[in-house]
Parts: sequence; C-alpha cells; structure tokens
Amino acid sequence: MSIYIYGFGDGKADGDASKKDLLGGKGANLAEMAKLGLPVPAGFTISTECCTDYFKSGKQLPQSLYAEIDTAMAKIERSMKMKFGDPDNPLLVSCRSGARSSMPGMMETVLNVGLCSTTIPGLIKNTGNEWFVYDAYRRLIMMYSDVVMEKAEGIEPRDGMGIRIHLEIIMNELKNDLNYETDTDISALEMKTLCERFKRKIKETLGSEFPDNPRDQLMGSIGAVFKSWNGKRALSYRRIEHIPDDWGTAVNVQSMVFGNMGDKSATGVAFSRDPATGDNNFYGEWLPNAQGEDVVAGIRTPNPLNNTTKSSHNRHLPSLEEAMPGIYQELAQIRTTLEHHYSDMQDIEFTIQQGTLYMLQCRVGKRTGTAALNMAMDMFDEGIIDEITMVTRLNPKQLDEMLHPVVDPEAEKKTTPLAEGLPAGPGGAIGQIVFTSEDAVRWARTGKKVLLVRDETNPEDIEGMRAAVGILTARGGMTSHAALVARGWGKCCIVGAAAFKINPEQRKLVIGSKVFNEGDVLTLNGTRGLVYEGELMMKKATENSRFKAFMNVADRYRRLKVRTNADTPEDAARALEFGAEGIGLFRTEHMFYGADSARPLFLLRKMILSKSIDERRRALDELFPFVKQEIQATLAVMDEKPVTLRLLDPPLHEFVPQSLENQEELSRELCIDIDEIKKRSLDLTESNPMMGHRGVRLGITYPEISAMQIRAIFEASAELIIQGKNPLPEIMVPVTCNEKELLFVKNISEKVYQETLEKYKITAIPHQFGTMIEIPRAALKADRMAEHAEFFSFGTNDLTQMTFGFSRDDIGSFMNDYIDNAILDADPFETLDQDAVGRLIEISVALGQKTRPDIKLGICGEHGGDPASVEFCHRAGLTYVSCSPYRVPIARLAAAQAAIKEA
Amino acid sequence: MSIYIYGFGDGKADGDASKKDLLGGKGANLAEMAKLGLPVPAGFTISTECCTDYFKSGKQLPQSLYAEIDTAMAKIERSMKMKFGDPDNPLLVSCRSGARSSMPGMMETVLNVGLCSTTIPGLIKNTGNEWFVYDAYRRLIMMYSDVVMEKAEGIEPRDGMGIRIHLEIIMNELKNDLNYETDTDISALEMKTLCERFKRKIKETLGSEFPDNPRDQLMGSIGAVFKSWNGKRALSYRRIEHIPDDWGTAVNVQSMVFGNMGDKSATGVAFSRDPATGDNNFYGEWLPNAQGEDVVAGIRTPNPLNNTTKSSHNRHLPSLEEAMPGIYQELAQIRTTLEHHYSDMQDIEFTIQQGTLYMLQCRVGKRTGTAALNMAMDMFDEGIIDEITMVTRLNPKQLDEMLHPVVDPEAEKKTTPLAEGLPAGPGGAIGQIVFTSEDAVRWARTGKKVLLVRDETNPEDIEGMRAAVGILTARGGMTSHAALVARGWGKCCIVGAAAFKINPEQRKLVIGSKVFNEGDVLTLNGTRGLVYEGELMMKKATENSRFKAFMNVADRYRRLKVRTNADTPEDAARALEFGAEGIGLFRTEHMFYGADSARPLFLLRKMILSKSIDERRRALDELFPFVKQEIQATLAVMDEKPVTLRLLDPPLHEFVPQSLENQEELSRELCIDIDEIKKRSLDLTESNPMMGHRGVRLGITYPEISAMQIRAIFEASAELIIQGKNPLPEIMVPVTCNEKELLFVKNISEKVYQETLEKYKITAIPHQFGTMIEIPRAALKADRMAEHAEFFSFGTNDLTQMTFGFSRDDIGSFMNDYIDNAILDADPFETLDQDAVGRLIEISVALGQKTRPDIKLGICGEHGGDPASVEFCHRAGLTYVSCSPYRVPIARLAAAQAAIKEA
Repeated sequence: MSIYIYGFGDGKADGDASKKDLLGGKGANLAEMAKLGLPVPAGFTISTECCTDYFKSGKQLPQSLYAEIDTAMAKIERSMKMKFGDPDNPLLVSCRSGARSSMPGMMETVLNVGLCSTTIPGLIKNTGNEWFVYDAYRRLIMMYSDVVMEKAEGIEPRDGMGIRIHLEIIMNELKNDLNYETDTDISALEMKTLCERFKRKIKETLGSEFPDNPRDQLMGSIGAVFKSWNGKRALSYRRIEHIPDDWGTAVNVQSMVFGNMGDKSATGVAFSRDPATGDNNFYGEWLPNAQGEDVVAGIRTPNPLNNTTKSSHNRHLPSLEEAMPGIYQELAQIRTTLEHHYSDMQDIEFTIQQGTLYMLQCRVGKRTGTAALNMAMDMFDEGIIDEITMVTRLNPKQLDEMLHPVVDPEAEKKTTPLAEGLPAGPGGAIGQIVFTSEDAVRWARTGKKVLLVRDETNPEDIEGMRAAVGILTARGGMTSHAALVARGWGKCCIVGAAAFKINPEQRKLVIGSKVFNEGDVLTLNGTRGLVYEGELMMKKATENSRFKAFMNVADRYRRLKVRTNADTPEDAARALEFGAEGIGLFRTEHMFYGADSARPLFLLRKMILSKSIDERRRALDELFPFVKQEIQATLAVMDEKPVTLRLLDPPLHEFVPQSLENQEELSRELCIDIDEIKKRSLDLTESNPMMGHRGVRLGITYPEISAMQIRAIFEASAELIIQGKNPLPEIMVPVTCNEKELLFVKNISEKVYQETLEKYKITAIPHQFGTMIEIPRAALKADRMAEHAEFFSFGTNDLTQMTFGFSRDDIGSFMNDYIDNAILDADPFETLDQDAVGRLIEISVALGQKTRPDIKLGICGEHGGDPASVEFCHRAGLTYVSCSPYRVPIARLAAAQAAIKEA
Repeated sequence: MSIYIYGFGDGKADGDASKKDLLGGKGANLAEMAKLGLPVPAGFTISTECCTDYFKSGKQLPQSLYAEIDTAMAKIERSMKMKFGDPDNPLLVSCRSGARSSMPGMMETVLNVGLCSTTIPGLIKNTGNEWFVYDAYRRLIMMYSDVVMEKAEGIEPRDGMGIRIHLEIIMNELKNDLNYETDTDISALEMKTLCERFKRKIKETLGSEFPDNPRDQLMGSIGAVFKSWNGKRALSYRRIEHIPDDWGTAVNVQSMVFGNMGDKSATGVAFSRDPATGDNNFYGEWLPNAQGEDVVAGIRTPNPLNNTTKSSHNRHLPSLEEAMPGIYQELAQIRTTLEHHYSDMQDIEFTIQQGTLYMLQCRVGKRTGTAALNMAMDMFDEGIIDEITMVTRLNPKQLDEMLHPVVDPEAEKKTTPLAEGLPAGPGGAIGQIVFTSEDAVRWARTGKKVLLVRDETNPEDIEGMRAAVGILTARGGMTSHAALVARGWGKCCIVGAAAFKINPEQRKLVIGSKVFNEGDVLTLNGTRGLVYEGELMMKKATENSRFKAFMNVADRYRRLKVRTNADTPEDAARALEFGAEGIGLFRTEHMFYGADSARPLFLLRKMILSKSIDERRRALDELFPFVKQEIQATLAVMDEKPVTLRLLDPPLHEFVPQSLENQEELSRELCIDIDEIKKRSLDLTESNPMMGHRGVRLGITYPEISAMQIRAIFEASAELIIQGKNPLPEIMVPVTCNEKELLFVKNISEKVYQETLEKYKITAIPHQFGTMIEIPRAALKADRMAEHAEFFSFGTNDLTQMTFGFSRDDIGSFMNDYIDNAILDADPFETLDQDAVGRLIEISVALGQKTRPDIKLGICGEHGGDPASVEFCHRAGLTYVSCSPYRVPIARLAAAQAAIKEA
C-alpha cells in the first residue's frame, strides 16, 4: 500500500525539496522550509501518486487515504493547538494544488475549509472579530460552491450561468443597495445574512445543500483539486508548456493563517533579488490587513517592501521596513537563508497574523533574461554558485531579448493592443504601413520606416520584407514564409493577426470599426505578437559587456561548433559579431532577391523560361559575373572560416514572374509572346512543389546550372586566393536521395575545378564537397552518400516535412487540433522530433561514419537555433549547428549547456 | 593473369551453358552446342571480364589477350583446315557481341573479317565464285567502316553524314544507273569496282584507309564490339531493361560459313515450338542462297520451314522439308536434342553451306503469354519439366494479356499507328472520341462506346473515365492520375501521347495535318500504347480453362494471400473471379464518383464547405444512408472475406467544385453567396496537398466525419449479420504518423461500436482496427503504432513519395533524366525501392511484431501487383498483398514463384 501523505511543520517534515515529483513544487518547498526551521504553518501534502491513482480508479480517492488524513490532521491539530471541527477552538485549513512545474492559476484552491454552523461561534469567540469570521465564511462559500460543487462534482447550474457569478451578483446588489464602496463597508450582521442568501441561492441553482460538515468540506476540496488537474484551463496550459498529462498534481492541506485580522496582520510577496534587473536588492510588495489574493488581484496598490526599492508609484506608501521593522528584519534574514540554501533567487509568499510571520511558499523566481544574466554572474562573484551553474542558469532563449530593440514595457502597460498575432520575429518596430512589396521598397528608399502589411507573404515579397522595419500578416503560422524569413533575419514580425481585414487594392487595413490607411503609423511588439496604434516608446538594446563576458565563459564548455545561415556579406558580418564560426548555409538563390538584383532576377527568369539548352546557356553566361561577385563578397567577409554554399534549391516556378507586369517585361525582352511566357510559367507549376523538381533534381536535368554555380564558387575563391586571402568554400548539394545524384554533380565539380586551376594558374583551392541530408532515403542510405560526400548537413526542415508527411505551409489547418488533443507535444518544426527525425539523423551519423570516419556533420534547419534541438545535436555527435545570425548566441549557450549536462 | 578466351568446336568446348555471366548468352550456348556434338563452326569467345577490364583501363585491350588470340586462332585454323590471312586457303571469321542477357540489335557485328587484297584471290579460287567473294568483301567494307572506323574509333565523318549512308548512296546510284533491281544483278566485276569506290569514299570521308591486313581487321572488330557496349543505343536499352552497366559484353569470334554460296546453301531461323500459340510444332523460316541478315531484313518473303506450319502468306513457297529433306531431318533431330537438353523452347539460327548444316546460335525463345502458358503445361505433361518449373516458366506480367480483349495483331500489322503514347492501361478499345467527362457520361448513356480524350485527367473526370471504354491523354506519365485509375480498373488507357494537340473548346484532336472531331472513331492498343485511326479488328479474351488449371497449381505453392483494391460491388465481384481472397483497400471516397452519386457528391461538397460544426453535422446526417448502403453492397459481395475500409483519405479540396456551374449549384442550394463558395474553396487550397490536411488529420479536425464513416461500417455489418451473413470489416486509418492519432480514432470507433450493438441488439460485430503505414515516421514508430493497430497495411505509393521526396504527380519533369543517367534503375512507383522504402517496411514489420506478434501485415500500394515487389513482400514476411482486380492473377503467380524461389 502506498503512503500518500507527507507532513510538515514544527521544524520537521517527511519530505524535502528533492521530492518535487512526488510532492509538487509547493509541497516540496514547504517541507524544505519547515526543515530549515522557518515559520511554516503546519500541514501535509497528498502526493501526485495519489492524483494518478485517483484518475486511474475512475476518480475515486484511495480507500487508505482516509485513515492517513485522520492521522495527519491530528498532527496539525497538535502543532497548531486547535482542532478541526472543534466548536470551541476550531482549526481552519486551506487546500491548494501544487504540480511539479508551476501552473499559475490553472488549478483550484479552497481556503477557510472547516467553517460551518458549529465552528463559527468558536472562531468568533477566539478572534473577537465577527466580521472577519463571516467574511471568511462568505469566501469559503463562494470558492467551494464554484470549485467543488459546480466544477468538480459536475453539477450543471440550472439556468446555465455559473454559481460564482450568481453569488457575485447578489453581493454587488447588496453593496449597491446600501451604497457601499468596499467589502469592508458591509457590517458583520449583513455579512452573516449574505452567507445565508448565498446558501439558499446554491440550493436553488445547483440543487444541493452547501455542506455544513468540516470533514465533508475537506474531502470535497481534496477531490476538487485533483479533478482540476484535468480541467480545461489546466489541460490547455499543459499543451502549451509541454507538461505531460501523467505528472498529476499534489494537494497541500495547511492550517490557515490570516493576514486580514487587523493592523498587526499583513500579507505579501517578495523576490530575493530584483526579477527585472537582477540587482541584488530584496524586492517585493505587501498589504496590511489583507489576504494573499488581495495583493495578486491588484485592487489596492500594494506597499513597497523596503525603502531601497520604492518607486515613483509607491513612494507615498509605508514600506514593511518602516511599518513593522522587526518583522522585516526577520523576513530579510529568511531571504538570506533561503537564497544561500537554494543558491538561487527565490520568490516567496508570507503572511503576518497578529504580529507573527508565517512563510506560505517559496520557489525559484522567474526573471527576465537581463536579470538572469546579472544574477548568475553576481552569484558566481559572490561565491554562491560555481561557474558551471552560472552557465546553466540562463535559458538560452532568454538571450533573444538582449539582442533586439524592444517596445518599452512601461509604454505597453499604458495602452491596449489593437490586435494580437503570433510572435514570429522578435523585437519591436514602429513604422508607416504599406501594402505591397514595391511600395515598401520605394518608401524605404526615401528614408521612411515602413511596416509591410500583407495577407501572407511569398518569395516575390522578399525585397519589400527586407526594406521594411517590420512585417505584419493576417494569415500564416509560426512557420509560414513571413515567419521563417523574418526569424532568419531577426526582423520584427507578427503573423496570423486574423482580426485584421487587409484590402491591398484600396490600401486599407480594417479592424473592427477602425480603418488604417497607407502611411498610418503602427507599433509592433514582435516578441509578444502585439500590434498597437500609433507610436510607442522603444527601449534600445545596448551592447552588453556582461553578456560578452558570460558568452566567453560558456564557450569554454562547448564542443559543438556554431555556424550561421547567411546569404549576404551584411548577415555574415553580423553573425561574426554574434560569434559564428562559419557559414553553415549560404542559399545561392537568395542573392536574386537583394536590393540591387532586379537585373539578375530578370536574367534568372529568362534562364528558367528558356526552352532550349542554348537559350539557357546564354542566360547563364550573363548571370555568371553577378553570381560570382555575390559569392565572393561573402567569402571575403568570412575569410579563413568555412562557408557552405548550397546549390540551387527551390522549384524553378518560385522564381517565375506571377504579375502581369513582370510577365510583360519578360515577354518584351525575350521577344516571346506573352501567352508563351504564361504557358511556360504554367508548365512549371507543380501539384506538390516541395516534392517536385527542385534541388539536385534541377542539377540533373540542367547540369549547366550546377556547372555555372560551381564555377562561380571556384573562380570567386581563386581570385581571393590570388589576393592573399584564404576562402574555405564547401559545395553542398541539396535534396539528394541517392549517391548517384552526388556522383553526377561531383563529376561536374571536379571538371570545373580543374578548369579553374588552369585558368588562374594556381595549384589548389581548398574546398569540400558534401550534401544535405533532408530526404528520408538519403538518411537511410547515408553509407552510400558518404562515399562521395565529405560532409553531411542535416536539413531538418525538409527532413521533418518528409518524415511526418507534413507540408510546413499547410499544417496551419490542423496543427492546433494536434496540440490541443495532445497528439503531438510540440510543433516538430519548432522542436526537433527526436523519436523519428532524430532517429533518422542517428542512423545517418552511424552509417556515414562507417564509410568515412572523419565525415563532417552539421545541421542547418530552423532547429539549429532551438536549445532542445541543439542538445540533441550534441548528443548525436554532430560537428556543428548552423542557425540565423540572431540565434547564434542561443545556440552557443545551448551547446555549452548540452556539454555540461553530458559531463 | 586472367584467361580471357574460351574456345569451342569439333565436339569440344572450354565453356558451357552455365557460364553465361562470363561468356554471354551466345557464347555459352555455342559452347554447349559444341559439347552436344552439334555442327558448330569452330570459334572462341572473349569473356565479359575482358570487356570490363577494357573499360577499366581506358579502352585498352589487355596485353595478354594478343597471345591468347593467336593460340585460339590456330585452333580454329586446325579445325576448319584453313588459315586466317593465308593467300591460298584463307579463313574468314565473324565478330559478334553477346551479353548475359539478349540485347537484340543493340550492339555491333562485323562479318567476313579476313578478306583483303592478299586473300581474295585464294577465296575466289577455292569457291569458284568471284561474285560471292566481292559481295562478301563489299559487306565487310560497309560494316567495318561504319562499326569500327566511324563509331568505335570515333572518326567524325567530314560532312556530318555517316559513312554507311554514303556507301549505300553509291551502291543505289550504281543500281539505278544500270537499272538493276537486286544486288544479285550486279556483276562480279561491277562488285569489284564498287569495292574500290567504297574504299576511296572511306578515305575521302573518314580520312583514313580501309585496313588491308586480316589481323588489323580482327583486332579492330574486337575493340569495336566491346566499345559498342557503351554505345548510345545499348545504353538506352539497358536503362529500359534494367541491365546493369558493369555486366559487359563478350565477343564471339567464329569461322564464317556462308548460306549464299549457291542453291545448296541456305540460312534460317526456327523455334522448337510455335512462339505465338505454344503449339508443339517445329516452326521457322528459311531462305535459299542467302545470308542471315537477309532473313531478318525482310526484303524477301522467307520460306516456311515445314509443311505443317505453312500459312496463307507462304503456302506457295517450298518448305525446307520439301527442298532439302535430309537437312530438314537433321535439323528436326537437333530441335529435339536441344529442347530436351535445355528443357525449354529454343530459338535457333542455322546456315547451310553447300549442303552442310551449321548451327550458329541457340537460346531460349521469346513467346507470348498464351504460348508460355501452353508450352509450360504441355512440357509438364510430356515429362520434360516438373511442376515447380512449370509454375516458374511464366513471367507473371505475361498473364495480363490473357485477361483483356486486345487489338488483333494481324490487323495492326496492316496499318500504321497515328501516334504512340505510354501503355497505361492494358487491352484494346474502339470508340468515338469525346472531350469532356460530361459528354462521356451522356454519350455512354445512349449506348455509345466512347474514348475520353483529355490533356490530362483529374478527379473530376472520374465519372467520364468510368463511362468511357478507353482513355487517351496527351500529357502525364505511367503514374499520372489517368494511368493509376485506368490500371486500377483494368481499363484500356494511353497517356502522354504528346503528338496530339487537344482542343476541348472546339472539340478537336489534331495530329500533324489530320483533324479528328467529336464522334470520330479511333482504336487504342493500351498494351502497346498505340493509337490507330478508325476501327481495327479485336480479339476477344476468351475464358481460358488452362489458365485456371495453371493458377490452381500455382496457388498450391503460395504462402502470401492476395487481396484486391476495389471500391464497388462490381469490382469486388470481378476480383473474386480472378481469385481475390479479400479486399485490401476499399477507398471510402470513391463512392462519390459513381454513376448514381451526383446527389451524394453534392452533399459531400456541402459538408466540406460547411463553416460550423452544425452545418457539417447536418450534411453528414444526410450523407450517412448513402455511405452505409454503398459499404453494405460491397460487404455483401465479399461475404466471409475480410474487407479493409480506409477512412476518408484525400485532401478535402479535391472534392471542391472547380467549375463555375457546380459552384453556382452549391451556392443556390446552400443559400450562400457564390463569392463565399469561392472563398471557402480557396481556403482549402494547399501548397503541397499531398503533405497537407488529409487522412487521419481530417479525422482529428473533424471527428464527426470519422464517426459517420465508422457508424456506416458497423451498421452496414450489423444489418448483414441480422440477414445471416458474415461480414468481416477492417477499419483502416490513413496517413498516420503517430500512435496517438490512432488512439483518437479508436476511441471514436469503440464508442460507435457499442452504440451500434445496442441499436441492433446484437452481441458482436467481428472486426479489426488498423492503420496504413505510409508515412516514414509511422514506419519508424511501428512498435507504438502496433499498440492500437491490429493490422498494418503498407501504403507504398505514399511511403515512396515521402521516402524519396518525390511527388508522384510531378516527377515527370525529371524521371527520364534520372533513368537516362542511370541515377535510378527504375521508377520507384513502378517497382518498390527495396533499399530504402523496403528497409522502412522491414523496420516496421520487426517493430510491429515486437509489440503484437500476430499483427496482420499487408500492402495496398500500386506495388501489390508488381512481381518483383510481391517477391519482396513475401520475403519481408507480409500476410497479404492487395492490388487492382486485373492484377490479382499476376500477384498470385508472383507470390507462388517467390515461395518457390525461397524454398
């Protein structure tokens, strides 16, 4: 038989902080605090095992639990010198949930359990405060009827409106009738009458009596807390936070202490250091004569904890340091005890009942990225943590906010967003709205800051997206075209803001009754996905020297190299600043979307629409100097560092002119009928372009295209070598599924290589030849691929697409249903699916190394910047990850943490 | 050092028939015949190893070969009592290619090697026939200059025209000038002069002298034969026939014998049984005073071999039996010897030189499917072969021609096809052409036989395709929509007949200068891909009792079960006739394309375009009776046999009305604005529908659709059970990638199952619940899938798509380049890729059986009817294969042969 109950109090506890899985975070820390001798009201924790068993047995509490509760309650009674249900000296308890991982507000709480007709008089006698007792009773009735009777027992309110709302209406009517402003205006007698009216309403609405027996109340509350684990809110939260359903919650039953028993009572919350800045100041808020929920509810402005941390908002209010100096000193001592004990910043809740301090909760406090960085470095300097702990103290994703300018949070607090979308590109942006890519480019040229507003973007919008300071779309998800491109550039972007109706013809953006015209100003918070009217204040992301110092320490632990995905000299230079050790993915097609590439794009289109090999060769010859120059510029910036250049990848029709204007231009210059242009464009259309004529398949059909690109790479390198530089190009073949495709391109490459050596009269151009592994077949045949490939780069975007059969562009219609129904834990395009996609990578690594033990292994999908995926890459034995410039620091830190975790 | 040369002659040989890999088919059989004591002119074979070494060393003959040739030539000289290059008694030889597998006409041959200025007089003296000698010299010059000097040596003709054409022009001019009709009209002197003119032209055109040295001629010819292995024609042939490049060819050097040395000389080809019918008659053709090529060239009508096999075409000509009875008897004896020795029908070539019979070739003869069946059963009856050999003697694909009515081959011989396309659906069809699906349906209702002519088909054409007797498209490949559907139905179909210009607006079909209008009659030979003008004679495929007997024997060896893919009671009944043991794939969406399903299709569209769950539920309720009835009809036909019903699979937008007319109808009946219909249709469009919202993903988003389909299955079954029948439905979930998807649908299924039992007051409906394995992730996670799936059905079409990243609809643009460049051996949609797709199947089988040892395993892709793939399925341990009705016999035989091969 399991033991389900773990008691705490009086400087002793059955559990401790290490038992989080069993006791939940709250229960484990209550036990730990009790053991540390801190003033914790006595109580006990019913374990998460009990919750699991409860659901396994069809929502029945285990039979053995009842006796355990009796024993545990007796202990509390001894400790608190009161008795549960005793008419003379009644003990009240709270029932609170507490899962392994904090799920704030997602599950239920019942306070003041044990108040009933027999215990009320005793409590009134003992406290001498009739109003307080009826207020507590009123609170119990409201919570219990809502949480236990309606939600947990599943009693449907007869008229479809929740009981809580019924009761709130009654209470508000009373206050209105009597012209009362606050609850405290209600007299004790009126409060008592209110309780009776509440109970009649409950009987009338839910059809059953409010229980007048303390033990019934207790057991009902315990069951309700367990049930709330599978409540709708909790379920959704778990989906979003990827918390497994089978963890379960613990229930904490604890003697009630009251911060609302007069002027010597109070309640508060505090952080052992400033969670926003990381400053080593005790920081918090308190309210005299109040219960915990009053601080959180924000009805009254809370008082500052001490004088050091007073702000302009609360300077006029007395601090706890001023009002109760003795208690404050006691609390400050506890702060030091806890921080040294846990070696981390703590978030605590306390209540002062008639001059006595009680600790109700402690846990590791949440913090901003900046605060996390400062605290970690400070605590290392202070000797509280060692260097390894310091490096692991930052969630790598938190670095993101340190790299982008952001909307000032203070400014955001003072206004309401127009709409919310998905936070696709980080940081903030202010600009005038435009509705076409062309307009974005034109306005930007005149020095205006513009936001490009589109239903969704496509490759033809790239120029406009580049020119804009921010991008806003009404459609698309976190992996839509706009999101991918923006994230790659670290550009502020909000996608899927579905409340907007966009009318590009009239150049209007409509939301509700509001209409915005071209040129109107909006502010985007891309980090949170919020759109604001007008111009909000921005905060500049300043160069942070501590950040650099921290990263240098982290780098010492890292085995995995970090490269960047960059297609321009500018991106390459930015990535170098962020610490990139090479380029893992240079997309040769992206150069056709640069600001100065109108003519090259035209030539590319001409090449694509060529019918004969001669037409195509002529277009390729014209393109060659441009391609060579673009490649050379990036190779020059990345001197001495490897640059992986991927040969042409997308299906050709992506480049085909869609607009009539572009088609007409092409028709004129090629001297072909416009209908022929349209026909050739149509011929290139594919049913499933993602699995169509792309990547190496283009190179097999049109070897002359590969030859041109490879020649550009070699000639660009040769010229740099002659200039005394040391380019390290790596030629990468995309979308391969078969070693013979590689051999085909390798033969071209070797021929062009020899010709280049002869042309420039040099003896060698150091380079490598390799392939993407992004098709499942390539992964399964990696031993053969490695016969010709000196390196593999896992293209996990496509590999995920093919392995799941999920088109990245089309999953929007069902991904939410998958997450909501817990069919998938996470979007596999955000976090690498280690089960199957990861398995294919492991298979490839093993097979590839069998053929070529020194094969270089990298990853260049979007996952290269996702910390969990980086950890996987480390474990899988890859050589490097590659990600967009702004994610380079994230990957560096994640790689360091992965190495630390492994060791 | 390798031995490259294997001699034969005088009743002895170094090799034998078992050494085909080394000696090629021709060489091995020459050796075998020599050993059998048959009259084979002495010669030797240079092995395929030598060919491989020749290409490995950059097209150099191995040094050791020269001495071997000298030794071997000396042996021939002794045997033939002549000397190569001897002025008095010169020996002439032939040089012929001979690969492991016959490649008719693909490689080169040089005859009469050894004739030159010094040997001509001796040969004239010995034969007493100057004309014959100069004619032989003329032939040598023509062949040698073409094969050795131009093609092999790579000498470009100066004016771009091949030397062979130059020489033919000269010879034709001579005949025209002198008014000669045949070559024999040319006098010996004129022939001599012609040879001189030929040699001058060669010098002038190719820039070098024709070699006048027998040994130079011999070495040049040997090298040229090797080189022809990598000639363009041979390469293309190997691609098509999937012959590996590294096999190489052997070279057979053999003393020349002449069938053109007068009336006692002759040449012929024969089959030991009739290759068209299989009748046990010695069958062949011969020509007096002729060389082998004259028979093949078809300039003269050849004589019949014997009196039994005379036909209306050659009844007037003397048979060999009549003209040379002694020789004929000798040959007939050889026929019996060879057939008993090889235990199979032989194809032989012979030459009679001045009354002496010589055997030049024997090999297993090609035959029609009918002939193969008859011969196998006859030879078994005659005791020549055992039962296992009988079963393996038919290529399963040959059964196809026995199941469909065909165009009469005799009728085809008398006309020329209008155009050629790909043979996508077997058999023949005659009909009036129509250009739209609607017209096909309307015309067919009036009893007309129509051919549906389209650029390409799409799912909206299904009704018309059903109504038509044949389908012709100008675009698409062997796996295009039209091809897949037609093959599934066993309907005559030709796709990709690119020479046709189709104008559906004007209802015109144009080819060259010919124009066909709606209603004009064409004949299609779907087995060969040929289109004819007008009406050709058809041959009815008669019920073949020998075929049934043969299949019954084959079935005794088979372990793999064979099911069919069928969606209608008619298809199911046909498949039962062909021996199907169940349905492996009933596509629930296909019922919406039946002739009587206009209203259901409308309701389906209504359901798809519903915005709210209520709208959708109402449409589903209306659809339900129709769906139940369709399912019931097929379950009734398949009583007692398992029927796997796949839940809705395709992306919904496939059903959305594309035509304005259909959209308007929907708009009227749904009382929704037409623009809203268009918008909702557009919303369903996907970038890559194959990897989009389809299969189980629809069931997750719209569980009510799955519930309706499952209810229809259970209620249909329940009603049949009450009628005393025994339906065995298997519910199959498509496009799964994750066990939780399965669980989600299983929960729905179990709920509906219980409700159905209650509704019909029955205790059980025997059924199974399982999944397709068609997404790589499902294969890699098959252990988890098997937790909920009682069976797996491998959907190898989709599995191939995802594993290769090949969209079946889009590979047309590059597949030919892949085959031509030997990057792929075969289209993986035709023959299962065992390397990777097969590997995934093997992984799934192992993982699935680990979780559920008795899991049922099937395959239901197009590969289920491909013999090589069936063999793989047998080896992989599957339970059954499923294929279209017309392929059931093919799969049965392939399965039997796989079991025999394994044992």
